[in-house]
Amino acid sequence: MEEINNIEVVPCTDSEYLKPLTVHYNQNGTKKSWDYMRTHDSVSVLIFNTTSHCFVLVKQFRPAVYMCEWERAKSQPAKAAAAAEKKEEGAAEVSEAQAGASSAGEGSSEWPPACAGVTYELCAGLVDKPDLTLEEIARQEILEECGFDVPTSKLKRITSYRSGVGVTGAKQTMFYAEVSDDNRVSAGGGEPKEGELIEVVKIPLHEAMTFAYNERIPKTMGVIFSFMWFHNNMAPRYKISTNV
Amino acid sequence: MEEINNIEVVPCTDSEYLKPLTVHYNQNGTKKSWDYMRTHDSVSVLIFNTTSHCFVLVKQFRPAVYMCEWERAKSQPAKAAAAAEKKEEGAAEVSEAQAGASSAGEGSSEWPPACAGVTYELCAGLVDKPDLTLEEIARQEILEECGFDVPTSKLKRITSYRSGVGVTGAKQTMFYAEVSDDNRVSAGGGEPKEGELIEVVKIPLHEAMTFAYNERIPKTMGVIFSFMWFHNNMAPRYKISTNV
Repeated sequence: MEEINNIEVVPCTDSEYLKPLTVHYNQNGTKKSWDYMRTHDSVSVLIFNTTSHCFVLVKQFRPAVYMCEWERAKSQPAKAAAAAEKKEEGAAEVSEAQAGASSAGEGSSEWPPACAGVTYELCAGLVDKPDLTLEEIARQEILEECGFDVPTSKLKRITSYRSGVGVTGAKQTMFYAEVSDDNRVSAGGGEPKEGELIEVVKIPLHEAMTFAYNERIPKTMGVIFSFMWFHNNMAPRYKISTNV
Repeated sequence: MEEINNIEVVPCTDSEYLKPLTVHYNQNGTKKSWDYMRTHDSVSVLIFNTTSHCFVLVKQFRPAVYMCEWERAKSQPAKAAAAAEKKEEGAAEVSEAQAGASSAGEGSSEWPPACAGVTYELCAGLVDKPDLTLEEIARQEILEECGFDVPTSKLKRITSYRSGVGVTGAKQTMFYAEVSDDNRVSAGGGEPKEGELIEVVKIPLHEAMTFAYNERIPKTMGVIFSFMWFHNNMAPRYKISTNV
């Protein structure tokens, strides 16, 4: 149960994380400009636990998602309240294995409930250590966020693509990692010193596609895409019929 | 052939498009802060032409992607040059139906070739017109970007998800639209008055999955995800074996 309150929004003039830049250029002889942000590439990992036949995801409160819902609530007050209510029901329905996230912030008539900003995601991290390979960074994230120690040789590259092509254009590389209960070395949950408050959640394989397409549960496209990739490419090995 | 030159990067202090904000809040009693950006939700559309059995994508020069490659070239000069070379080969290999994008900017020893910033994407647009439904916005984008006039009743909602959960957290909704040559009313290409220089490209259905997983061709995850979705959900109707 996330408890979010005392919310205050201020302009951000000199951020350590967001550094807007403008690039001026000529495209086919026409002068153009574009505002963008420098950012790091990233890796994400679809983790499948072969002991419990569950996917391992992370769930966390995302301030940017929450503020987006707050904006929506301001512009469409009735719709947004109904949607938030449905979302809580939806999250509770899907799986007993998932801890529900809810609880309203102070002044809930104005601020949406905290669950509106809680997002299900693949285990992921920024490529901000130039000495490490993508596989080594992925391995570290699996360990820190989800508590499994997996050798890099067991990571299978799924593919790579561009994210946020309008603003950041960073490259994301997605991996697949099979783990078992034997690889478990800690509870995961991220690095508290980095301010991470990550909950590790299990999605049973037989519920995965229902979860993926349940729009009441906020999630990234990476979750939906990778579940479908698994069903097409890995499920036959586990003698599971693909129902996508 | 995109020609990009006279590139200049400057700090962006007061952008019309990028407005960084900071939110201060209490999470479970702990004081936290997060820098984020307000942005619009968006829609994207997987377009399938039933006359030619091709997917219809858009291809455009994305300054943010290009600058990302420039950063990479600076930090890994040898690797990036090799990758850019491979990328051009890759783009040429995949399909004759796709026009290749290349050509180096001025000072090509420092700047990557323009093709490093040219990205294949689903037809898409921002949800910035409060009076229109998501379907109506999707319909407008299909018309403006790709030149097909499709009634909103023919749009099938695939799903929705969160993008850029760290920075923007916006909601993206993906649709599927079947078009035929009879729906074609213009060449598409975007709104020149909005500075859009969009090339409409066709990806033949039988090449789609090879295209999707060719990492040498810069593309968004939406392209890969939606092609796979089509193969799982729509291809049987066209008597096509799914090879994903």
